Amino acid sequence: MKSRTSQKFLYLIIIIFSQLNFTTIIMAQISKTDSIKLDHYNKTAQLIVQTALLEQKGYEYLRELCGIGPRLSGSENSITAINWAYEKMKGLNFDKVWLQPVLVPHWERGDVELCKIVDLNKNLEILALGGSVPTPQKGIIAEVIEVKTFEELEERKTEAKGKIVFFSRALDQGQINTFSGYGGAVNQRVYGASEAAKYGAVGVVIRSITTKYDNNPHTGVMIYTDSIPKIPAAALGYIDADFLSSELKKNPKLKLNLKLNCRILPDADSFNVIGEITGTEFPDEIVLVGGHFDSWDVGCGAHDNGAGCIQTMEVLDLMNRLDLKPKRTIRCVFFINEENGTRGAIEYAKQVDSSEQKHIAVIESDRGAFTPIGFYAETDSKEILNRLKSWLPILEKANIEWIKKGGSGVDVQKIKSAELRLGYVPDDQRYMDYHHSANDIFDAVHPREMELGSAAIAIMAYLLSEEGL
Amino acid sequence: MKSRTSQKFLYLIIIIFSQLNFTTIIMAQISKTDSIKLDHYNKTAQLIVQTALLEQKGYEYLRELCGIGPRLSGSENSITAINWAYEKMKGLNFDKVWLQPVLVPHWERGDVELCKIVDLNKNLEILALGGSVPTPQKGIIAEVIEVKTFEELEERKTEAKGKIVFFSRALDQGQINTFSGYGGAVNQRVYGASEAAKYGAVGVVIRSITTKYDNNPHTGVMIYTDSIPKIPAAALGYIDADFLSSELKKNPKLKLNLKLNCRILPDADSFNVIGEITGTEFPDEIVLVGGHFDSWDVGCGAHDNGAGCIQTMEVLDLMNRLDLKPKRTIRCVFFINEENGTRGAIEYAKQVDSSEQKHIAVIESDRGAFTPIGFYAETDSKEILNRLKSWLPILEKANIEWIKKGGSGVDVQKIKSAELRLGYVPDDQRYMDYHHSANDIFDAVHPREMELGSAAIAIMAYLLSEEGL
Repeated sequence: MKSRTSQKFLYLIIIIFSQLNFTTIIMAQISKTDSIKLDHYNKTAQLIVQTALLEQKGYEYLRELCGIGPRLSGSENSITAINWAYEKMKGLNFDKVWLQPVLVPHWERGDVELCKIVDLNKNLEILALGGSVPTPQKGIIAEVIEVKTFEELEERKTEAKGKIVFFSRALDQGQINTFSGYGGAVNQRVYGASEAAKYGAVGVVIRSITTKYDNNPHTGVMIYTDSIPKIPAAALGYIDADFLSSELKKNPKLKLNLKLNCRILPDADSFNVIGEITGTEFPDEIVLVGGHFDSWDVGCGAHDNGAGCIQTMEVLDLMNRLDLKPKRTIRCVFFINEENGTRGAIEYAKQVDSSEQKHIAVIESDRGAFTPIGFYAETDSKEILNRLKSWLPILEKANIEWIKKGGSGVDVQKIKSAELRLGYVPDDQRYMDYHHSANDIFDAVHPREMELGSAAIAIMAYLLSEEGL
Repeated sequence: MKSRTSQKFLYLIIIIFSQLNFTTIIMAQISKTDSIKLDHYNKTAQLIVQTALLEQKGYEYLRELCGIGPRLSGSENSITAINWAYEKMKGLNFDKVWLQPVLVPHWERGDVELCKIVDLNKNLEILALGGSVPTPQKGIIAEVIEVKTFEELEERKTEAKGKIVFFSRALDQGQINTFSGYGGAVNQRVYGASEAAKYGAVGVVIRSITTKYDNNPHTGVMIYTDSIPKIPAAALGYIDADFLSSELKKNPKLKLNLKLNCRILPDADSFNVIGEITGTEFPDEIVLVGGHFDSWDVGCGAHDNGAGCIQTMEVLDLMNRLDLKPKRTIRCVFFINEENGTRGAIEYAKQVDSSEQKHIAVIESDRGAFTPIGFYAETDSKEILNRLKSWLPILEKANIEWIKKGGSGVDVQKIKSAELRLGYVPDDQRYMDYHHSANDIFDAVHPREMELGSAAIAIMAYLLSEEGL
């Protein structure tokens, strides 16, 4: 505990602070900004929010995009979607629109996905994990060992040989942040196959990593360790994972028949889609907004990450619709291949990190199209953090409650030369219901929630464009 | 603009403030609370959140309640639901459970609802407004005058005689707060009939007040002015309101055939349902949590306000499940008849305002079961506000971002003797999609969003119980 004197001092500070008009503080904080400017920003922010909410154009663009279907890197659909985005940005009269070529991994699900409990002649809902090797054509038939963790697997490693390992640890719903819950379970999906193969397992199934109690499996990337034999891996629907688990309790000798004909093809040509509105005063200083354009191959990647992309495209579109002429260039980048390679972001970063152009800030939207809450700022600079925080009363108009130090996003993190990396943060309670599954469809996106996100990112991008860092 | 000196002073304050550890401030602010207590509160809050999210019991109670169907005051269904709630609270082992009798208005929709564009032989989707008189048995056939506002109606009052007035002003989607948007449109529903009847109109239809572009009409209460003839009134589905509007532009002489057989019956017996956990130290000091239990007669009142009630019941249930023994009595009240009379709250307030028991705080949940954001405190006391704000780092565990001065809720506002009235505030972007319509069903509620609300209210109630005001 603090001493009485220091407590009194704290009280004093609190009292002083509570007496101050917050707007006054802001006006003092926005250096180089006079009250006319502040007024202009407030009005502009208000207009951005109203326009986004009333017109809901981004939402309609997303409807078009979702009509194309899923956009897995390397797929024909992904190229159709890339062409759509290119033409869309052209149609929206961005100052420049171009495609940046990049080679991407090309994995295909194939048309055979079977997981049957042989003894019960009961099919379970599965999806191969992205990157999985196929089973032999006739499939695998093997007994199952259910474990919750890699540690448990290691303890029971002698039992794993010749079996299918069933990783059944659920996403921890007790965590308030669903990304943390996801983070606590996803190692089973990403590294489970090689962990199991180490001990001679012949296949892997996992409980889908989801917050929704249904039977739609959730796929996602998996990574093999090169030195270990590659075994096939798939995700089970949550309900069927429960079923398998309870049946194994009755009969631990149950056999699964697993059959997958997914395949890894040679790398394929693909593209980042880039559009920009050129800055009127500092055209070589760039505020980048973007997210990944590829999705998994089920549903249509509405939340992950069609909406995130469209929101950043709508940032530029809102500038045009409101006839705002940003001082710095605002650039929108749809990065390809975040889901299974991050090749688009790596390629983009490689080019810009060695160019004359200066990315003063890069903002990623890749956490779903839900009601805005805040921005994570990937910075150690207290000055920058305080500066961003001083804009909160303006950002508040789009429901932004906070700016915190935190991770930006997988794609923009690659751009090392950027002065500031930001991650847009919406509410996350429903995200993992949809993520990487057939649930992630257009109807899962709410127009107002999505449009508020467009507005929040637009206000942030506009302030960065006008004020710099 | 402030002078340079005062700006520097402000900077100083900001710098000092930003250097302080927020938890330290809180520890200084929670008077009478030592660090052991703070630690206990943090752990308890964490447990409450985890338990609510993991077990999702309130969500399952809501599923049961929604199975009963809608709960309009005076209806048989509402009595079934009241009995269910009474038995449920008993089954949850609350210390006391009782019913408080109250007479409620009894309006019935009837089984005839027709709104046809005669000239096109096209039926429009409608719902009579709650409290509307019926049409004559053969219905009304009349031309239509479309207006957006009462002012426009007054300007065109000579045209209204003998016609059906169509109030077509939409909820303003440009507003970030959907309750504000609703507030800006709802006068058409509540007072439209008498405004129109003043000028000799024979009926009223309104555009449903909603944020969702669909064709499910949204009902709600309407109030007649006694001195003016009572004419029937109904809400049109949004899509059909658009249709009618566009057809009227082509042919302003179109006739509507409106037929309703709703009716007002004598007042009916009903009940508030009340349960409590008796305080261990101050049993006569009460922290009330509650909301209205009645709903409209379409959908099942899942968000409005089944979930709000169940959240407050779960507050007590969480105390029991976690074996918390609150110092003050925590009482849950399901008020009947908020939608069309507020009779339950009036009766409750009448009894407690004249009793020895002291309501130190009353908390209402009636804004839907979405992700928590904050609490409105209906108080002029800066001291109380600051005290509540000092609890934010504890409440944050259930996603509470702020405490603001604001309105509590229609029911708890009636309890004038309460020292503090609070309104629980979740995100509101989706609320008006469901409100008072067939859309308001169990599936519209998300388990995590709802359970976080239970947890937020439980933490607030527990802190009030332990700390007092």
